[in-house]
Amino acid sequence: MVTENIIGYSTKSGHSFLQGVDPSTETYLEEKFSIADQAVIHEALDKAVDAFAIYKKWKPFQRADLLDTIAQNIMNLGDTLVKRASLETGLPEARITGERARTVGQLKMFANAVRTGKWEENFIDHAEPERQPLPKPDLRKQLIALGPVVVFTASNFPLAYSTAGGDVASALAVGCPVIVKAHESHPGTNALVAGAIVDACKQHHAPDGLFSTLYGYGPELGQALIKDPRVKAVGFTGSYRAGRAIMDSAATRPDPIPVYAEMGSLNPVVITASAMQARAQTIGDALGASMTMGTGQFCTKPGLMIIEENSKADDFISALEKKIESTAALPMLNTRIKSNFLKSLTDLSKETKVINYNAEPKIQVHPAIAMVSGDEFLLTHSLHDEVFGPFAVVIRCKNADQIKRVLSSLGGQLTGTIWSEPGDSQNESIIEALESISGRLIWNGVPTGVEVADSMMHGGPFPSTSHPFFGAVGIGALKRWTRPVAYQNFPMEYLPHNLK
Amino acid sequence: MVTENIIGYSTKSGHSFLQGVDPSTETYLEEKFSIADQAVIHEALDKAVDAFAIYKKWKPFQRADLLDTIAQNIMNLGDTLVKRASLETGLPEARITGERARTVGQLKMFANAVRTGKWEENFIDHAEPERQPLPKPDLRKQLIALGPVVVFTASNFPLAYSTAGGDVASALAVGCPVIVKAHESHPGTNALVAGAIVDACKQHHAPDGLFSTLYGYGPELGQALIKDPRVKAVGFTGSYRAGRAIMDSAATRPDPIPVYAEMGSLNPVVITASAMQARAQTIGDALGASMTMGTGQFCTKPGLMIIEENSKADDFISALEKKIESTAALPMLNTRIKSNFLKSLTDLSKETKVINYNAEPKIQVHPAIAMVSGDEFLLTHSLHDEVFGPFAVVIRCKNADQIKRVLSSLGGQLTGTIWSEPGDSQNESIIEALESISGRLIWNGVPTGVEVADSMMHGGPFPSTSHPFFGAVGIGALKRWTRPVAYQNFPMEYLPHNLK
Repeated sequence: MVTENIIGYSTKSGHSFLQGVDPSTETYLEEKFSIADQAVIHEALDKAVDAFAIYKKWKPFQRADLLDTIAQNIMNLGDTLVKRASLETGLPEARITGERARTVGQLKMFANAVRTGKWEENFIDHAEPERQPLPKPDLRKQLIALGPVVVFTASNFPLAYSTAGGDVASALAVGCPVIVKAHESHPGTNALVAGAIVDACKQHHAPDGLFSTLYGYGPELGQALIKDPRVKAVGFTGSYRAGRAIMDSAATRPDPIPVYAEMGSLNPVVITASAMQARAQTIGDALGASMTMGTGQFCTKPGLMIIEENSKADDFISALEKKIESTAALPMLNTRIKSNFLKSLTDLSKETKVINYNAEPKIQVHPAIAMVSGDEFLLTHSLHDEVFGPFAVVIRCKNADQIKRVLSSLGGQLTGTIWSEPGDSQNESIIEALESISGRLIWNGVPTGVEVADSMMHGGPFPSTSHPFFGAVGIGALKRWTRPVAYQNFPMEYLPHNLK
Repeated sequence: MVTENIIGYSTKSGHSFLQGVDPSTETYLEEKFSIADQAVIHEALDKAVDAFAIYKKWKPFQRADLLDTIAQNIMNLGDTLVKRASLETGLPEARITGERARTVGQLKMFANAVRTGKWEENFIDHAEPERQPLPKPDLRKQLIALGPVVVFTASNFPLAYSTAGGDVASALAVGCPVIVKAHESHPGTNALVAGAIVDACKQHHAPDGLFSTLYGYGPELGQALIKDPRVKAVGFTGSYRAGRAIMDSAATRPDPIPVYAEMGSLNPVVITASAMQARAQTIGDALGASMTMGTGQFCTKPGLMIIEENSKADDFISALEKKIESTAALPMLNTRIKSNFLKSLTDLSKETKVINYNAEPKIQVHPAIAMVSGDEFLLTHSLHDEVFGPFAVVIRCKNADQIKRVLSSLGGQLTGTIWSEPGDSQNESIIEALESISGRLIWNGVPTGVEVADSMMHGGPFPSTSHPFFGAVGIGALKRWTRPVAYQNFPMEYLPHNLK
């Protein structure tokens, strides 16, 4: 029995299949998922084009209702979904339950934004026929949907950034059909959520092909989708390597299309001497918890802890060490991620001191930290690469100037954090250095935990994302799948509804 | 005597020079302009980085005042500027005077947007410390400047899209230093306007290096600028070929940066049978005037006139023919553009019927049209390429269905126009077909004449621009040089001024 690719309201098999793996045992799960071949891809895209012609005429409340039903159908999957997602990812059921709440919350947030129109950017300029030297035309502008989009799902968010996650929900919300490339490490979770979406589409008589999901791997399925002229934009959440490959493919199309990729981030955390003096242990506890949360598999995991050398620095480090040594070893999301994590630590341990490093190949991984001086960090290129998993580099800087040199050696970041005391004379210049590379700045807190709010920015300069203007969280994410169109001197009867 | 490159408040020579050409005589103008070499480029970029650290802290009103002074200084150049721009471009002085008004108007519009803050996208979410299961943080978000940007100037807008044009004005308005690549066909105009900008910078004590302008050619100077890590974004207005080369270079940087390129457009105009029945001659007159205005050297020139076959179609065509035959031959902006124009007509005349085509190589060019059937257009690839200059293809379609097939064979467009009568049963489907490829739709009008207004969209899907979300006209253009940053749980004293 092989689960087929979902192409609108039909299903199709390719010629081969893939299987999920239970990362806690590293054994294949029983179910097989058919890998999409060219014919399957072609059919999904053809249907998406046809669906767009119908779906783009749906009224905002219709799209909102569809999203609300998807949310409801996901909840209706109950424990089946929670258990499957936990099984395929190794993430605890409690975490999956929390992520499900976020996923459903996002669907409802986008539904609400579309229903109320609060995300829209409508402009109306009335004509001035008497204006000299030339009459002013009547001009009105709105955002319209781009067309069919492809979404690559994230291994570390099997619900919130996968099949009905933020990218899919925001694209459907504005009027775009979506083709989801299922993640090969949680295909069963994908199938369950896809079923909830298809059921919702049927309930609302959505056009056939509005939603499809295909199984396969990035280099074949992914590249075929990115290169197809019927695809008008791409959403991605994942590694730098995969995200950059997608960007490069889209940029070399005969007609380049927008790619909204959220990639890696080191999430530097600066701890000033004043903060260390005041509460070294508190900070060590907080950052230790943040870097090990979810086995360090968050894009906002604090990967660099940059401390201003200080008599209390050792207290911070011992709190941090205690935390990582007392954290239970856990499986990672999949075997590839685990292998990469262990390889990174092995390579780094040849160059520098890695604490709590365990080279034995096991299923569960231990958190670890590396400890370097500011000079060593600045000279060691490999320390500038993100290590995905429960690992951080602690950088002991001579002074605040070296902290700023370290920060200016980094690429774009999703977040930048400062722990300090008000009135510390270094605050402004460190905040400025963090601001110049980051999308979100945090004062005396941890970067993990991305609040879903209008004022959130979850994005940043390259390489944290592919375009610094767009974020993947909050209603601003809706804009990514749209473009503005102006209507000049249009008769009322042919104007779009919300420009009348 | 060689005019040097302007690098902030100093000037520098390279090892070679270029000269402007009077296109009405095709003879070199006397003045020489030094071509920037690597050392000059390096110095301009270093200064821009230093200037950014200071300029980004300027208050909005300071930036607004600077723009207003630039506008004033440009006006103060008086006839000297008008005459020089006319001499270098072959455009009449009246056109240059009008364009100067637009340029000054844009500077003031951006100054006003920045002074009032009406372009900003600020969000504030207050903390909810009691929220369950997790407290909600205080989150605030604003747009900040990207850093030094490079602007490529346009041959066809020596003022409004050149040295102090829309891209430069919008970048300076939000806080970005600018390096302008002077256009090799109007270097003297560039030098005059650059002087006005530098004087304004001095008057307002702007940091050294906020504005630089370098002379040279795209493949050397342009590529060096695009590839430099100190450059954070690029603005461009010009041909598809040059724009695509810039996009490709930026996309293959180790750290790709945003490119905002406004490139070619065919600007299809559909004329329905109902419109033709009602006023064939009026439409022919209007489109004939639009396609020959400014010797057809506008990005919004109507390059395709798609007519539904009809008993009055010949009236339209004879009005159009009369207009092009009665239009005086005029020089084009530069000899390269003229050669390309003549070569395009020569090539097309081998494949199809070109009316008013004059193969003799002269300085002045005559407007011309090609006349093809819908079938012929769909089969002839060369007819899908933009011909920059006073030329249009008239496509006689069998029926409205063929019109829609013609439209769906086109790439992205800046504009799409429909001439029709209200109540024509084809209107909705033709508007839909135009909307799916265009950034601006025009009802019973001409695409030339881009109103500068908030509700204008001057942009569109590729290849008309590099990114469908952004436009180059109106206050939306400001966003291109910015990115959002969120501040989480920040003490009031460290929050940016406008988020307090």
